[in-house]
Amino acid sequence: MLQVTLGIDIGGTFTKIGVANRAGDVLAEDVLPTNIYKTIDPFLDILHRKSQTLLSSIDSKVDLVGIGVGAPNGNYYNGTIENAPNLNWKGIIPFKQLLSKYFDVPIVLTNDANAAAIGEMVYGGAKNMRNFLVITLGTGLGSGIVVNGQVLYGHSGLAGEFGHIIVREGGRNCNCGRKGCLETYASVTGIRRTVYKLLADSNQPSEMRAVSFEGLDARMITDAAMRGDKVAIEAFRYTGEILGLKLANAAAIFSPEAIFLFGGLVKAGKYLLNPTQHYMETNMLNIFSNTFKLLPSQLMGKNAAILGSAALVWNEIE
Amino acid sequence: MLQVTLGIDIGGTFTKIGVANRAGDVLAEDVLPTNIYKTIDPFLDILHRKSQTLLSSIDSKVDLVGIGVGAPNGNYYNGTIENAPNLNWKGIIPFKQLLSKYFDVPIVLTNDANAAAIGEMVYGGAKNMRNFLVITLGTGLGSGIVVNGQVLYGHSGLAGEFGHIIVREGGRNCNCGRKGCLETYASVTGIRRTVYKLLADSNQPSEMRAVSFEGLDARMITDAAMRGDKVAIEAFRYTGEILGLKLANAAAIFSPEAIFLFGGLVKAGKYLLNPTQHYMETNMLNIFSNTFKLLPSQLMGKNAAILGSAALVWNEIE
Repeated sequence: MLQVTLGIDIGGTFTKIGVANRAGDVLAEDVLPTNIYKTIDPFLDILHRKSQTLLSSIDSKVDLVGIGVGAPNGNYYNGTIENAPNLNWKGIIPFKQLLSKYFDVPIVLTNDANAAAIGEMVYGGAKNMRNFLVITLGTGLGSGIVVNGQVLYGHSGLAGEFGHIIVREGGRNCNCGRKGCLETYASVTGIRRTVYKLLADSNQPSEMRAVSFEGLDARMITDAAMRGDKVAIEAFRYTGEILGLKLANAAAIFSPEAIFLFGGLVKAGKYLLNPTQHYMETNMLNIFSNTFKLLPSQLMGKNAAILGSAALVWNEIE
Repeated sequence: MLQVTLGIDIGGTFTKIGVANRAGDVLAEDVLPTNIYKTIDPFLDILHRKSQTLLSSIDSKVDLVGIGVGAPNGNYYNGTIENAPNLNWKGIIPFKQLLSKYFDVPIVLTNDANAAAIGEMVYGGAKNMRNFLVITLGTGLGSGIVVNGQVLYGHSGLAGEFGHIIVREGGRNCNCGRKGCLETYASVTGIRRTVYKLLADSNQPSEMRAVSFEGLDARMITDAAMRGDKVAIEAFRYTGEILGLKLANAAAIFSPEAIFLFGGLVKAGKYLLNPTQHYMETNMLNIFSNTFKLLPSQLMGKNAAILGSAALVWNEIE
């Protein structure tokens, strides 16, 4: 029988589910809306039904060896989703326990950035690495940190909040209630804020002056940069300046073998990577110069959300 | 037979050696100068001779189970001392290999801050903890970071350079050749620089105006603060402001069970701890509030340098 795992990636808007084999092929996948369910029970009913349909849709006989769940504010130790700001289900949801009523297989739950890190280790560029970081640059900034081959969960199970290190005292307001967190600068939302700051501070012409804040996305900023838009290019430079310094700091603490960048903002390619690499090297403690690589995630372009979640189980049983 | 380990703490000026049992009693100890030896061989000869004398001085029959060495720029993986700026022996010294010609027991070498962390775990306040940090505030700032019960060595063996995260872009010159490193603010040297900056910027009377930069030590600043010297009190506040914020950032990354402060500056007690605690809490990401304790090392006042090195062996064999 073909051994497979079920990967579930819970996002604020959509939840992706997929069946993956050990080689990293997604054999079947589906999606369901997350936030139309005001309570968790009907969501789980639909999730279970769709999962069963997926599993039975696969031609060969399959052996489901486990389920991996990537969720915002997912706590690995407790299998809980804790006060996730983008989900309807408030408080502490014992997700693993609830899901185990439907499935009699091992279930592993963690947050989405940790799932991305394990996905990189099982299926991506971090195979055989024991010390590396995955930084996810999406709406916010998440991090999955692997030390000695193990994800850094810390005492609480919630470690790795690299997006919430304060990088500018008294800086930009953050959703966490504080000011100046890294993710208010280095993320899709962060670079949008930077673009608007630049548009406000300068008289520089820019095609982005025709776009509303809500209408602006990372792709538009990249496209503008490709056309030589000086505001867009400066926005990437500024993002790379802040992110690069903080990655140099992270290298001094973790001495990783690689740092992988992942998520929507990384699709900007060289516009993000070049300044980030430049400022990272400029600020690097000499003993760590040229000891590791800054790389785009090798799951980019693949079904990363599902693979990251599916990888959780392989990582656990191997 | 009584099982003992030999702890060797190599400092720029003195090298301390001692014999410790598993309970943390230092049964015999000695010291030798480090930097009068221009090459490593005569140093090792004396070190060996003094160690043998120490071991034979103990009343009961002893079984030497291993030797632990704490050294500046000590690399755990390779057993080497790498380009230590304060030592005469330049380049990469294969210390473990050289020492093993004299002793036929396991030898464990790491840097002094990692030794302090393992000392805390084996003999001090971190017994049974699996996730904690030890921050050493001496001439510089060192860190020993324990994740999942293991010291964070990273890919290179040199991880944990928390003292060299850049906290002020374009800030104070650091011995590493860069600017604005944490240790240029939060260390004995750092607070001396802060005192002198305050004396330069203000007209505030201070008893420290009578002391030269080289003559000023941490004890004088503490004594001045105890007498209400406003410059001394402000220097501790400023040190705590920078250190506290960075410890809040560290907590967001590591989610430790405790952070221990160790070293000369910690003897200032509440003058350092209160502002550090205050600014740490002020800047803490809410999910980590009250999840861990900031504590002085429980090896303070004991023979910490020897115990930290001696602990390396117990940690390895247990």
